Amino acid sequence: MIPRYSRPDMAAIWEPEARYRIWFEIEAHATDALAELGVVPKSAAEALWKWWATNPRIDVAAIDAIEAVTKHDVIAFLTWVAEQVGDEARFMHQGMTSSDVLDTTLSVQLARASDILLADLDRLLEVLERRAKEHKLTPTIGRSHGIHAEPVTFGLKLAQAHAEFRRNRARLAMAREDIATAAISGAVGTFANVDPRVEAHVAAKLGLAIEPVSTQVIPRDRHAMYFATLGVIASSVERLATEVRHLQRTEVLEAEEYFSPGQKGSSAMPHKRNPVLTENLTGLARMVRGYVTPALENVALWHERDISHSSVERYIGPDATITLDFALVRLTGVVDKLLVYPERMQKNLDRMGGLVHSQRVLLALTQAGVSREDAYRLVQRNAMKVWESDGALSLQELLKADPEVTAALSTAEIDEKFDLGYHYRHVDTIFDRVFGG
Amino acid sequence: MIPRYSRPDMAAIWEPEARYRIWFEIEAHATDALAELGVVPKSAAEALWKWWATNPRIDVAAIDAIEAVTKHDVIAFLTWVAEQVGDEARFMHQGMTSSDVLDTTLSVQLARASDILLADLDRLLEVLERRAKEHKLTPTIGRSHGIHAEPVTFGLKLAQAHAEFRRNRARLAMAREDIATAAISGAVGTFANVDPRVEAHVAAKLGLAIEPVSTQVIPRDRHAMYFATLGVIASSVERLATEVRHLQRTEVLEAEEYFSPGQKGSSAMPHKRNPVLTENLTGLARMVRGYVTPALENVALWHERDISHSSVERYIGPDATITLDFALVRLTGVVDKLLVYPERMQKNLDRMGGLVHSQRVLLALTQAGVSREDAYRLVQRNAMKVWESDGALSLQELLKADPEVTAALSTAEIDEKFDLGYHYRHVDTIFDRVFGG
Amino acid sequence: MIPRYSRPDMAAIWEPEARYRIWFEIEAHATDALAELGVVPKSAAEALWKWWATNPRIDVAAIDAIEAVTKHDVIAFLTWVAEQVGDEARFMHQGMTSSDVLDTTLSVQLARASDILLADLDRLLEVLERRAKEHKLTPTIGRSHGIHAEPVTFGLKLAQAHAEFRRNRARLAMAREDIATAAISGAVGTFANVDPRVEAHVAAKLGLAIEPVSTQVIPRDRHAMYFATLGVIASSVERLATEVRHLQRTEVLEAEEYFSPGQKGSSAMPHKRNPVLTENLTGLARMVRGYVTPALENVALWHERDISHSSVERYIGPDATITLDFALVRLTGVVDKLLVYPERMQKNLDRMGGLVHSQRVLLALTQAGVSREDAYRLVQRNAMKVWESDGALSLQELLKADPEVTAALSTAEIDEKFDLGYHYRHVDTIFDRVFGG
Amino acid sequence: MIPRYSRPDMAAIWEPEARYRIWFEIEAHATDALAELGVVPKSAAEALWKWWATNPRIDVAAIDAIEAVTKHDVIAFLTWVAEQVGDEARFMHQGMTSSDVLDTTLSVQLARASDILLADLDRLLEVLERRAKEHKLTPTIGRSHGIHAEPVTFGLKLAQAHAEFRRNRARLAMAREDIATAAISGAVGTFANVDPRVEAHVAAKLGLAIEPVSTQVIPRDRHAMYFATLGVIASSVERLATEVRHLQRTEVLEAEEYFSPGQKGSSAMPHKRNPVLTENLTGLARMVRGYVTPALENVALWHERDISHSSVERYIGPDATITLDFALVRLTGVVDKLLVYPERMQKNLDRMGGLVHSQRVLLALTQAGVSREDAYRLVQRNAMKVWESDGALSLQELLKADPEVTAALSTAEIDEKFDLGYHYRHVDTIFDRVFGG
Repeated sequence: MIPRYSRPDMAAIWEPEARYRIWFEIEAHATDALAELGVVPKSAAEALWKWWATNPRIDVAAIDAIEAVTKHDVIAFLTWVAEQVGDEARFMHQGMTSSDVLDTTLSVQLARASDILLADLDRLLEVLERRAKEHKLTPTIGRSHGIHAEPVTFGLKLAQAHAEFRRNRARLAMAREDIATAAISGAVGTFANVDPRVEAHVAAKLGLAIEPVSTQVIPRDRHAMYFATLGVIASSVERLATEVRHLQRTEVLEAEEYFSPGQKGSSAMPHKRNPVLTENLTGLARMVRGYVTPALENVALWHERDISHSSVERYIGPDATITLDFALVRLTGVVDKLLVYPERMQKNLDRMGGLVHSQRVLLALTQAGVSREDAYRLVQRNAMKVWESDGALSLQELLKADPEVTAALSTAEIDEKFDLGYHYRHVDTIFDRVFGG
Repeated sequence: MIPRYSRPDMAAIWEPEARYRIWFEIEAHATDALAELGVVPKSAAEALWKWWATNPRIDVAAIDAIEAVTKHDVIAFLTWVAEQVGDEARFMHQGMTSSDVLDTTLSVQLARASDILLADLDRLLEVLERRAKEHKLTPTIGRSHGIHAEPVTFGLKLAQAHAEFRRNRARLAMAREDIATAAISGAVGTFANVDPRVEAHVAAKLGLAIEPVSTQVIPRDRHAMYFATLGVIASSVERLATEVRHLQRTEVLEAEEYFSPGQKGSSAMPHKRNPVLTENLTGLARMVRGYVTPALENVALWHERDISHSSVERYIGPDATITLDFALVRLTGVVDKLLVYPERMQKNLDRMGGLVHSQRVLLALTQAGVSREDAYRLVQRNAMKVWESDGALSLQELLKADPEVTAALSTAEIDEKFDLGYHYRHVDTIFDRVFGG
Repeated sequence: MIPRYSRPDMAAIWEPEARYRIWFEIEAHATDALAELGVVPKSAAEALWKWWATNPRIDVAAIDAIEAVTKHDVIAFLTWVAEQVGDEARFMHQGMTSSDVLDTTLSVQLARASDILLADLDRLLEVLERRAKEHKLTPTIGRSHGIHAEPVTFGLKLAQAHAEFRRNRARLAMAREDIATAAISGAVGTFANVDPRVEAHVAAKLGLAIEPVSTQVIPRDRHAMYFATLGVIASSVERLATEVRHLQRTEVLEAEEYFSPGQKGSSAMPHKRNPVLTENLTGLARMVRGYVTPALENVALWHERDISHSSVERYIGPDATITLDFALVRLTGVVDKLLVYPERMQKNLDRMGGLVHSQRVLLALTQAGVSREDAYRLVQRNAMKVWESDGALSLQELLKADPEVTAALSTAEIDEKFDLGYHYRHVDTIFDRVFGG
Repeated sequence: MIPRYSRPDMAAIWEPEARYRIWFEIEAHATDALAELGVVPKSAAEALWKWWATNPRIDVAAIDAIEAVTKHDVIAFLTWVAEQVGDEARFMHQGMTSSDVLDTTLSVQLARASDILLADLDRLLEVLERRAKEHKLTPTIGRSHGIHAEPVTFGLKLAQAHAEFRRNRARLAMAREDIATAAISGAVGTFANVDPRVEAHVAAKLGLAIEPVSTQVIPRDRHAMYFATLGVIASSVERLATEVRHLQRTEVLEAEEYFSPGQKGSSAMPHKRNPVLTENLTGLARMVRGYVTPALENVALWHERDISHSSVERYIGPDATITLDFALVRLTGVVDKLLVYPERMQKNLDRMGGLVHSQRVLLALTQAGVSREDAYRLVQRNAMKVWESDGALSLQELLKADPEVTAALSTAEIDEKFDLGYHYRHVDTIFDRVFGG
């Protein structure tokens, strides 16, 4: 966890105290269920909740000190709680195993982390929609391979991102469902010493599903899917960040990250306004992706469980969720305040001397009866002249001066092919698909 | 693609001829739609289908030869088709861009690959269910950390695998849906020169959804999610394979891969029967996982597209699907024919002198009023003697000879705690959860 | 292995026949040593070499057919050789284990692959040096964050790449040394049934070092280091490829991949000249990187060995070396024939109105006694005007019109700071560092 | 950084204060060199060192507060230092760029981290050597595929690990050399405003090499190689950890992690002694490996640099080195105190009824003139009986009762093949190879 890439709400989920609070709630809910089943006295559960109602401080240092001796975290915690609650606490944890607590806690943490990430995505989607609609018909050049292709609108770029992040939201909602299960099934998952109804009760209280069949642990394919999904979302973050980085290049400069008055771009070059936020997002995406493989390697635990997954999860549980939360919020800010320069977009669009319309001419020629091969040759020989002139020559004029072309198309027909609006006839259709009717 | 790790049906999807066949169908369906819209003559579409009805051989070498000159695969293909069909072929591909064909083709291929993988999973689930039910109550020791814990049944192990692969089936079905879209949207996704109705027609004919907003390409977050899902499934393959490898160890030998009469385990040691299939599956899982990161790196294409994803997909499209198909079928065979040794399972279960029942004694002591700490100490001091005797001593007998224990529990009470059946009271519940009522 | 990304020499190393040829040589050299030690008759070795001198065809299909029965590749091969050579062949493989042959063969293959890759790097270094010297003083703008920074030369960019690939050459030479060991140590590496002198003889004949301590296999940390090194080299390939992709952008266009007369950039847009080779290299780099993690996961084999590494190596042995070989040669071609446009570089350099010289002015101000903070403020306020004018205004002129600036610096002093040559005073020094005196 | 997986010396390298101390030293050494060259007054350098001689506290919070405004870390630091030192401080950082400081600092940090890791490896090598020699001739079964193969000694297992970690030490020393360079070359690496002699001076003072050609940054292939090397070492850690985990399995129990008196293995099962340290090491290895790919992705920065690498390095710089340091020390402790059970090793060795000697019999038969195929058949048919008896039958006795065998080998000859010492004749040779003469 890197403080500068952390936001408080997400970081709080992973604080030791937060973890111990969930531990307590699991133990106390389980004790309720055990009392209901007559396994432990009702007074035991009451004692626990009574103490809890005092809103006690969790003394993390004291628990750590006990763990230093026992070398077992859950026993250390139970010992500390017993010191606070008194004799009735001995009924806690009856028939349960440490992993019942640990794994169910991780489910709660990942579910809560998901809720924050889903809210982050909702805010990002809002901002993308607003800015997409704002620039629905702002002309800009579409580029494939970094080379000018045909006109698009800036709003279409953002609509594309919106659709992508909406898919990501759906994926995360699925991954949340995958991860949000409770297991209270005992040492090897047989419920030998704890009734399945305890699991059902705890799950219901925590808003989790029951784990249909656990071993000692909740199976790690669930977590693997979860972190893989975060890796996909991070890759989409990188995609949009990369778009902004490209647009902010000196030679392109169609958009810029917001630049606050006090900000300095470079200790050496005062004129510089660098896309540092989106470059940073590119790096953060690499990290979130880097956590996917360890999560996948965690799946093949030995037999009913080994504990190799645990250290991995101590890193990636916080690091992946905190980093992605930060990245999504940062990306939202970038889009929200992005400086967009329509004049520059138009200027760039115009600089290729009309080459972007070459495809339409090509089609018109074939429809006028020229073979596809010939049409291609005619367009390309004129296009190449424009290209080599670096936009000084106009494709439209060259075509009108090419007798082989004018044999097939009239001047008016050629002119008609250079209409920008033609390219935007279906923008409404696409926006309807993305944002609804 | 490694021939020895390939099955014909999956490999066939990725053959050049199969790819060209899909290309043709996309072009021909698109020509139908264009004809319907009046953009091209109906005779053009008819000419294409008429030729197709002759079930023509696709001359891959001839197309390759054209590509060697044009350095463009789709143009090479269109040129070759035009040579076969004649003049009417010039109307093909009107307003489309190469990626319309390439990306929609990849969607078809991945959808078909998914169908094979889903069928593989169905067969694996069948076999897991059969063998789980066969061994529903076959006692075996559950192990955490590789150390004996408490009894489970062999059927429970397989039920766990069943639940895991059923989750994987659901994930793959989702990933298939994610990947199965068609884009016929032109050079930068604006439908500038091709009506959206062409896309809708082609999508419907191929059983795909339309891509709501494409650029020149279908966005690669879809593919990233797809290959990430394959990586999760491969990790589950590794988990079950690792279980078999452990069970086949000389000292454990509770199960073995089927060993055919002609098979030789080692050129040097004729007695050896090695779990080579499941070791092989472990390696294959590493490969399928290895394809996840390149797929994630493919997401951040530049602007409306660059072509860096293409070479990656030429590798991982076939390699990931072919390898996982092979692995799932191999795993199914391993489970189907797995030699299971219940006597050995019982022998291993017994060898710890009853230590596996220690938890029940611990609980009984606390329920009889002994503090948890004292109960733990009493059980552990006897358990340690058993442990150090390597199973020669019996925990049951030692406890009955320990006055501090017998002060709390009668002999009959102690004996009752060593009943194996006690551990299996909830097996029905778990099987109901996994396999239904 | 993807044919279009393969070169014949590297692919040949991985053909089944090539592998069997190495197998035979290992077995025959070992038989020589065994005969020398008196373990087997000299006639046995003679018989093997006599047959080999006939340059026999290796019948891969026949060996495969035997393996289909025995399910053991080395036994299948030995059986087939025995069929060819006759009775004397029974002395072959005495005291050896399959892995002695397999692992030593892989060492030979990877050493040969390294030799090709080293030669590829040598050729790339030659081309980089030639073109770096050609453009040693070709002015171009240096960019950080994609934003114009200060002037560099195009030769410096290539010198940087040269230094990077020379480091990579040294790394690969180390990795080759790491991988080039022979193990002929028997079933668990104890030389129980084969004298260490056999290993020494075979190693010497094949140009390998002996493996100091093997188990049954050569330890896989060696291979992990090897493939990790390929991953680093691939990342450097991506770096230089990315540079070219950026330079070829429509708005930048300072350099272009060579564009052959017959080549078509797009089926739809005939004017397009896309950096498809370097985009392709970007994708290939992702693949070579993707093979690193499986290689790392191969290290932790169980006990004296398991065979999970084998399937991984069947993929990545060929795929990583073939792909990197192809990529290095393609990259060399790109650099060799790269179209460089010095006029465009100069034009881009000039377009920022002299902003690239701001740092020098900043320094001059501080040296003239202005506080760093004030100097920064003075430069930035003028720089911002230039920036906002998109290069229409001149920083040099604005500074000369700013009284606070001219209070510290004379007009002549200001003018002197805008000399491009100033930036290139140390180019010789850097070239000396990279290319020697 | 996870506190429980951190050791103080390594963590200290990455503390903000430590970083700022290196920043200061770089700036002050550079100012010395600038003064020597007459660029700045000598009094400037003197003022810096005079302040430094007071051993001033670095006020991290104050610097952070300035950065919150300037959004630039180096400017914030310089501003704070100027507040402390006074007017002379304005000569600091003359002609330098932030990355000169940041990248050279990272080199210092990684070099220091390397020194700790090298010392860790030295201690691990010592412990491995001591325990290897202690168990040089402790018989134990060698296992391939988890199946008993032939006898080895426990010392040989540790000698193998020693050789592997000695290779890793050499690799790390190379990686340290690769990473330990200083760049003080200005905004785009041209030394435009800072003489190369400043770089040489700073490098010498810090014990670094000069970076032959930098851009604005030190090229990231160096760091990629560094982190890849850590990934290889981590994989070796996993290998040895996995060996211990296997040896500690209940059924094998040939060695155990040291179990301290106060330690509790399980909250539920008091008899359990789990290999939790080595399982933990397995997880930590996954994390260190997980950092390799982000480091590789950092190589392809745009043009003269972008800053995407920075956030990645804020994570993996500390996390990879701290985690590996912790893992190496933990592994050293595990080996140092490992409980080794030679009696159990002997017992396991004996349990297969002599099957481990089958290879020697096979060889003897072929040397006695039996064809390899027949010899294999004879040994296997007897071996299979032993196998199926689970070690109750003796291969030695069965062979002596098999007329086809005794037709080729006398009883004495058969008995001679079952001598364990035979397998250890070359242990001295191997130890000499690994540990010297």
